[in-house]
Amino acid sequence: MGDWMKIVGGIDGGATKTECVLMDIQGNILGRGLAGPSNYHVVGINNTIKAIRKSIIESLKNIGERKIDYLTIGLAGLDTKRDFKYIERSFQNFDLANRLDFKHDSIIALIGAHAGKPGIIVIAGTGSVAAGINRDKKYVRVGGWGYLLGDEGSAFTLGRRGLMAVLREYDGRGASTKITRRIFDKLGIDDYEDIIIKIYGAERIVEKVASLAPCVTDAAKEGDSIAINIIYEEMEKVGELIYTVAKRLDMLDEDISVAMIGGVFRAGEVVIGSLRKVLNRYELKFKLIEPLFPPSIGAAIWSLQSIGVKVNDIINNIENSLEMLD
Amino acid sequence: MGDWMKIVGGIDGGATKTECVLMDIQGNILGRGLAGPSNYHVVGINNTIKAIRKSIIESLKNIGERKIDYLTIGLAGLDTKRDFKYIERSFQNFDLANRLDFKHDSIIALIGAHAGKPGIIVIAGTGSVAAGINRDKKYVRVGGWGYLLGDEGSAFTLGRRGLMAVLREYDGRGASTKITRRIFDKLGIDDYEDIIIKIYGAERIVEKVASLAPCVTDAAKEGDSIAINIIYEEMEKVGELIYTVAKRLDMLDEDISVAMIGGVFRAGEVVIGSLRKVLNRYELKFKLIEPLFPPSIGAAIWSLQSIGVKVNDIINNIENSLEMLD
Repeated sequence: MGDWMKIVGGIDGGATKTECVLMDIQGNILGRGLAGPSNYHVVGINNTIKAIRKSIIESLKNIGERKIDYLTIGLAGLDTKRDFKYIERSFQNFDLANRLDFKHDSIIALIGAHAGKPGIIVIAGTGSVAAGINRDKKYVRVGGWGYLLGDEGSAFTLGRRGLMAVLREYDGRGASTKITRRIFDKLGIDDYEDIIIKIYGAERIVEKVASLAPCVTDAAKEGDSIAINIIYEEMEKVGELIYTVAKRLDMLDEDISVAMIGGVFRAGEVVIGSLRKVLNRYELKFKLIEPLFPPSIGAAIWSLQSIGVKVNDIINNIENSLEMLD
Repeated sequence: MGDWMKIVGGIDGGATKTECVLMDIQGNILGRGLAGPSNYHVVGINNTIKAIRKSIIESLKNIGERKIDYLTIGLAGLDTKRDFKYIERSFQNFDLANRLDFKHDSIIALIGAHAGKPGIIVIAGTGSVAAGINRDKKYVRVGGWGYLLGDEGSAFTLGRRGLMAVLREYDGRGASTKITRRIFDKLGIDDYEDIIIKIYGAERIVEKVASLAPCVTDAAKEGDSIAINIIYEEMEKVGELIYTVAKRLDMLDEDISVAMIGGVFRAGEVVIGSLRKVLNRYELKFKLIEPLFPPSIGAAIWSLQSIGVKVNDIINNIENSLEMLD
């Protein structure tokens, strides 16, 4: 660890916002800054750089420094080798950090969720993905192939399957379900045919469908067997994602913490209970937990680890200074 | 039947072309005309009317008449009550026919496939749907809810599931499959990651995915068990569509002809054999057949039936004059 290091940083940049956190090498949080979106596939590379700069400059206020020694930038949309090449070239002359490290946003979420220790995360928001890191710092990601080809257990997929259950009821293929009334209310319609107009005519079709996920989880909470079944089948696929991560990381014989991230899990036991049941069937030592820290802290922890700091020694400092910030 | 009737017509209008067929009331085909697309959701109402006019005027050549007595127009995109209201209003002052009758394109396909007799059709092209008509002329349609919410067994769904199998192989979730090499070749890629760019970046994403269906059916023909399984599972859903149509039409105790329409069935026995197996499991008297006539002829037959002609009496005339046309 270089004693010249004073400040490390972590950035979590996504489709809705950019967050920067700065720490000293003892893990004390020195500042935090927010800015607009920085998924460059969505807002373009110039807006991405601007948002990242803004979040850093805000977090540098009151510190009396103009540069970060080691900055880890976690970004949504860094999916392919081509993405990495492009983003690294675009940041070649970046003047606010001495060292830059780009990571897929699932990695910093993973580091944050387990405070840098080995573990697995499963994200089920609009989309879904599972990822893990083991004691050799080997990283693996499974799933996350988007709304058409993946996103098992995501809000989009739950909403989509809810709509399909309603249309199966209409067709006379499936039994009637309490999902129907909820989706009619949410879409503001009173006719099955209008589903087509509302969904295929939506400007942001993926978000529109994802917004219907609570219609399924709420119906399940009321005991609707079709909704319960949809959730269980999707959690079976999520469980398979988690199991595959663990297998590929040679973690099957260990105690494994699985942190649940994303809006789908906020539905509570109706979702989490299903996932627990699935994981128990694998007869492995999984424990479902809440993430310890958010992804921006995860990025900063990655910076600390990269310069040789042992996170175990400073985790209390992070916790204490995080509380003080609020 | 009015003796003043001289000419009836049938139009099949879709996203790629418009076809008009004229007959006398003995079922002799008098003319045929072609024009561009007439799915008004795609090309707009003005182009739709233009295409329909053009196909009629072409088919009226050499007949010495300027007007059709009874014209049935089967149109893609006539899905909701709102669609019917709109299209009927748009054709209020149509001067090339004394009587107009608008039908969803699946109805004229159904009439054509069984020459106006009771029966079921199953369409599996880019999308999918099943429909049937019984001896009381009751009509039922099941499925057909589009690429996100339905289209079971369609080329889109086969292509989508083929892609998912390839990504499951990449993730280490599923076994390796012969679908992979075929999809790589078809997309012109040599890396799994490029799938995402090629599919989500495609200009016409549904058609792009549907174009991959042969990668699945070809792999199945070579004995790939993952491909075979995908096809069987999708044909289970198609079988359920057919069964639901038959049930809702009170046809479960009858011999039922099911006409197969659309590109997916052109893959042959690898698909049709699966569907037959599924239907046999229902223990019902289904017979899978080729459609007797195309949808444009179906629309003309509907016109004949509407003015009281018994199709049984004139079916030979249709057949003979159809051959003469080519």
